Amino acid sequence: MNSFGLVFRVSVFGESHGSVTGVIIDGCPPGIAIKPEDFISDLSRRKSGSAGTTKRKEGDFPEILSGVFNGFSTGSPMTILTRNKDTDSSAYIEFADIPRPGHADYTANIKYYGFGDFRGSGHFSGRITWGLVIAGVIAKKLTTQMKISAKLISAGGSGNIENAVKEAIAKDDTIGGIIECKVKNPPQGLGEPFFYSIESALSHIIFSIPAIKGIEFGSGFASASMSGSEHNDPFIDESGRTATNNAGGINGGISNGNEIVFRVAIKPTSSTGIEQRTFNFKEKEMQDLKITGRHDTCIALRMPVIIEAAAAITIADLMMIDRGIFGIRK
Amino acid sequence: MNSFGLVFRVSVFGESHGSVTGVIIDGCPPGIAIKPEDFISDLSRRKSGSAGTTKRKEGDFPEILSGVFNGFSTGSPMTILTRNKDTDSSAYIEFADIPRPGHADYTANIKYYGFGDFRGSGHFSGRITWGLVIAGVIAKKLTTQMKISAKLISAGGSGNIENAVKEAIAKDDTIGGIIECKVKNPPQGLGEPFFYSIESALSHIIFSIPAIKGIEFGSGFASASMSGSEHNDPFIDESGRTATNNAGGINGGISNGNEIVFRVAIKPTSSTGIEQRTFNFKEKEMQDLKITGRHDTCIALRMPVIIEAAAAITIADLMMIDRGIFGIRK
Amino acid sequence: MNSFGLVFRVSVFGESHGSVTGVIIDGCPPGIAIKPEDFISDLSRRKSGSAGTTKRKEGDFPEILSGVFNGFSTGSPMTILTRNKDTDSSAYIEFADIPRPGHADYTANIKYYGFGDFRGSGHFSGRITWGLVIAGVIAKKLTTQMKISAKLISAGGSGNIENAVKEAIAKDDTIGGIIECKVKNPPQGLGEPFFYSIESALSHIIFSIPAIKGIEFGSGFASASMSGSEHNDPFIDESGRTATNNAGGINGGISNGNEIVFRVAIKPTSSTGIEQRTFNFKEKEMQDLKITGRHDTCIALRMPVIIEAAAAITIADLMMIDRGIFGIRK
Amino acid sequence: MNSFGLVFRVSVFGESHGSVTGVIIDGCPPGIAIKPEDFISDLSRRKSGSAGTTKRKEGDFPEILSGVFNGFSTGSPMTILTRNKDTDSSAYIEFADIPRPGHADYTANIKYYGFGDFRGSGHFSGRITWGLVIAGVIAKKLTTQMKISAKLISAGGSGNIENAVKEAIAKDDTIGGIIECKVKNPPQGLGEPFFYSIESALSHIIFSIPAIKGIEFGSGFASASMSGSEHNDPFIDESGRTATNNAGGINGGISNGNEIVFRVAIKPTSSTGIEQRTFNFKEKEMQDLKITGRHDTCIALRMPVIIEAAAAITIADLMMIDRGIFGIRK
Repeated sequence: MNSFGLVFRVSVFGESHGSVTGVIIDGCPPGIAIKPEDFISDLSRRKSGSAGTTKRKEGDFPEILSGVFNGFSTGSPMTILTRNKDTDSSAYIEFADIPRPGHADYTANIKYYGFGDFRGSGHFSGRITWGLVIAGVIAKKLTTQMKISAKLISAGGSGNIENAVKEAIAKDDTIGGIIECKVKNPPQGLGEPFFYSIESALSHIIFSIPAIKGIEFGSGFASASMSGSEHNDPFIDESGRTATNNAGGINGGISNGNEIVFRVAIKPTSSTGIEQRTFNFKEKEMQDLKITGRHDTCIALRMPVIIEAAAAITIADLMMIDRGIFGIRK
Repeated sequence: MNSFGLVFRVSVFGESHGSVTGVIIDGCPPGIAIKPEDFISDLSRRKSGSAGTTKRKEGDFPEILSGVFNGFSTGSPMTILTRNKDTDSSAYIEFADIPRPGHADYTANIKYYGFGDFRGSGHFSGRITWGLVIAGVIAKKLTTQMKISAKLISAGGSGNIENAVKEAIAKDDTIGGIIECKVKNPPQGLGEPFFYSIESALSHIIFSIPAIKGIEFGSGFASASMSGSEHNDPFIDESGRTATNNAGGINGGISNGNEIVFRVAIKPTSSTGIEQRTFNFKEKEMQDLKITGRHDTCIALRMPVIIEAAAAITIADLMMIDRGIFGIRK
Repeated sequence: MNSFGLVFRVSVFGESHGSVTGVIIDGCPPGIAIKPEDFISDLSRRKSGSAGTTKRKEGDFPEILSGVFNGFSTGSPMTILTRNKDTDSSAYIEFADIPRPGHADYTANIKYYGFGDFRGSGHFSGRITWGLVIAGVIAKKLTTQMKISAKLISAGGSGNIENAVKEAIAKDDTIGGIIECKVKNPPQGLGEPFFYSIESALSHIIFSIPAIKGIEFGSGFASASMSGSEHNDPFIDESGRTATNNAGGINGGISNGNEIVFRVAIKPTSSTGIEQRTFNFKEKEMQDLKITGRHDTCIALRMPVIIEAAAAITIADLMMIDRGIFGIRK
Repeated sequence: MNSFGLVFRVSVFGESHGSVTGVIIDGCPPGIAIKPEDFISDLSRRKSGSAGTTKRKEGDFPEILSGVFNGFSTGSPMTILTRNKDTDSSAYIEFADIPRPGHADYTANIKYYGFGDFRGSGHFSGRITWGLVIAGVIAKKLTTQMKISAKLISAGGSGNIENAVKEAIAKDDTIGGIIECKVKNPPQGLGEPFFYSIESALSHIIFSIPAIKGIEFGSGFASASMSGSEHNDPFIDESGRTATNNAGGINGGISNGNEIVFRVAIKPTSSTGIEQRTFNFKEKEMQDLKITGRHDTCIALRMPVIIEAAAAITIADLMMIDRGIFGIRK
């Protein structure tokens, strides 16, 4: 179930503190220019280092192992991975007995009968999104007529993100945030009925990213408080442009050519520095748990590029499905 | 793309004003008792008739065409459909030239080069959710150890739903709403990593339902304003029960055994009775459009049972995938 | 698992003596002219009536329930079914206890814990191929630049098919046969690496048809006795034409533009009129079983059109996948 | 399309002369003991070295990059690869202009617009089956109650394989062969209707292996010459044992518990040492082509272990699907 996409298909693998993290991209057409440097800019945006993100230095440089020859995609599956470095797993051993609140420690243990790689949350780690960013860079090369961009629009409930992060650092606590993603100039007609609407496909991949708690399109949850006469977007010209964009560029699950807009809610990093009282499953009693180690105060800071990648991957796949069924639209 | 589910697989077909609306359910185990009457209760909840819902009488009685023999599922695909009646399509002809704001008229026309069945929004109609409700009844029979229930918790921004609907009717306008769905007593360990998290699977099917604009799990968008120390749910006993449930019963995409909770935002019905100024693509000029005919003031009133069905279908599929890989958990 | 195809997707449903047999076709582009009469010719080829085929008159006329509007495909899923008539199920009741040799009675009973619809072999009946023929007619409309034709080239080991059938009828026994299918003028480049080679896709659908025991491409099993210098097909001109066609038009799983050729082996109809000694699972003893009722002496006579349909469906899907990834080839 | 399997899912990647060849195995349950040495025996069977196989020494040792922790599978995707060594690509450059008869040079070039990795046939190479063998070793660990074994039963049309190979070497030509695979003690009830019969699933994966030209189950092509009274396998005891096994252990696409038997036809290696007259697409004229370099006289010698792997992968997947839908059978 580690694959997404019907025709343009992305599969992720690896563990946080295992030897590698990687991705396979299948269904990429041949002749796309690809070199390791192309990934640097997006990987940097995802990378740790700035205030509010973990101090851990990720060994991020991508190795292209297959699917690229003489600098161009070949049409065969592309395997791209990175070696994990700088991993200190000692802090994680106790979490089998005292699963960290908000983490996947408990469910991973249940699901995998204790055989999961618990180090650094293993395959449940945000580290796995490295592969999404890689696939996103490829997908962006397939969607150059569009501009896909995401940014953090609030953190900890505050539009002043810098301040919110500083305050959280001061308290040794963590905060969440909201990211908005826009796709400018999307083709019309993307999305398939019924179960492969744009929103279905986008939300599917977005919710595979750790820490996402919600997604909304266009006016989203605010729509629920609106009247139809307010919410409807009247058309204003032959190109299908609408006066407002409460629909977020999507009608009936299909792109109408206006900007595609969605927002995602990201929960606060679970690894807060503040002591938590929780259950010790070995001793069968409540105890205080203090999580040490290097963690992100606001993981949402690193996530816009991941959301962009998810959007680009989805749109590349929907374009291929549409082109497969309908041919090339004029 | 009209199919959902990996092992328990649901496919919908039909058009609003075509001859039938139906569903195929594949991957249902044999020996489940099924008779047409089993569907009546959930179909009634979806049905039109109460204040705020359309006056149209849907010919809803289900015909079971395959997959059931002597009152029990056979293990072969179940085909269940209903004949459409009471359809007045005359009002829809003009919408090819003057696509209704907020509707799929415009995108359907683009996508299908004008060949789509425009009558009553055709395959884009909420009518297609009839099949979801049918499949949901079957899925509920496969998940009897749980209790899946959804209800409308606000409409038009107001918790007093009855009042909000009355006001909207008075203005001949429409309103949206928010539905909350809860799954009590879910098994632990449902959901697969990375791309088949519970949230990925649930949001995928939920966003195939017309009129949905957002989904959030547990504390959802509110999480973005919380600190980690507030948001984390501490475990309090051996069964994995948590003191709070901001996670909505899901950690790392996998059920932890606590109640699964999610909310969806439903936009106001697009067919408002209030006149709208929009573009006439034939005459190439703006004009006033007055939508007549019978429509729901608040489509959200009819949707809790559809959301329940989507949840039951998803959980049935996730249970089968989990059982397929891991065997039967103790 | 009653679906085939990645983009052009066919799902079958129904039981031999149930109320209907049908098919859903998803991923068909809009604007294809379709009327019920279009199916008659291929349905007749599949139909019973000539020497060596069962006397049963199948109620074959197709009802188009969705996906077609004003005589053209709409782009929404097409549901087409036929009502079953003229079914005498009384002969089938005993086969739960005394499963017929060569039939699916025994495995169906094991698989479905006795809940399967045993009448006329239920969902295991060759009757289910009705839906394949329907989908094949649609697929042929999408592949008009090609000519897909299959014929029975031998029956009962004899090239004189008429004689072989007569002899078998005289003995009240049944015979098998070999069908050869050719696709003239296929596009080059169909087939995806590694697991979606043309042969993989074709054999997958072909082996879903009841009674198939083997498939071979080009020189097939004879290749195993050939040397490389005999078997290789040298290219002889710029268009990629080859002097011989041992490859059956496929190199590395991908069409080279030469005729695609494959043959399938069909076993003799299991319902022979000759008495068989087999196990009675209720009485727990061997007994003689005499199968009466109307059956095909040589089911292979009716199958060329089914093989053609399977080929057309596969090629339509492969064309869509190729076009999705690579765009339209010059 | 480089993935196979619905629940137990195998994806291959790599190129013959690229840096790696590898495989991802998803859907493997946790707690399976796995160490690199477990693969050695099956990899040796696939390996080059004996008479009739290429002299090339493949750098075969498997590196386990993810999904295994402390010697056990974790439940996360397993990535296993090997570094390619000892590759001499110089011989392959000319084949873009003069595609080798019987090879994928021509179709790869068409399909990938000249961007494919042509070295050693790239992703079309038999080298890619390394990953199948790896996945097969895992799958065998999931099917230990069965015995899956394949062997070469004839080569070059002769049962005396050693002689046939010697003769071919003497002529500097190549030969094909027939491999028979048997699954002893399979569970009853494997295989899903209609499109996921055992034969459909098995043939799908088998035909992804390069050089396969045919597959037949049980009595296969010989069935076409048999009468029903000869071909039917009468049941002889309560366990479902049959007196004969013309069905190859499969009725109606579902295992009946008797031995599953199938045979595959393998064409002669395309790279014969004998000079071939074929088309030069650059010079646009016929010319003589002499293929030098190290190649297998009889590639079929190395393939039994690959066929076993394909069978084990398929059966593991079918077991999981069956268990997912039906639960654990008694």
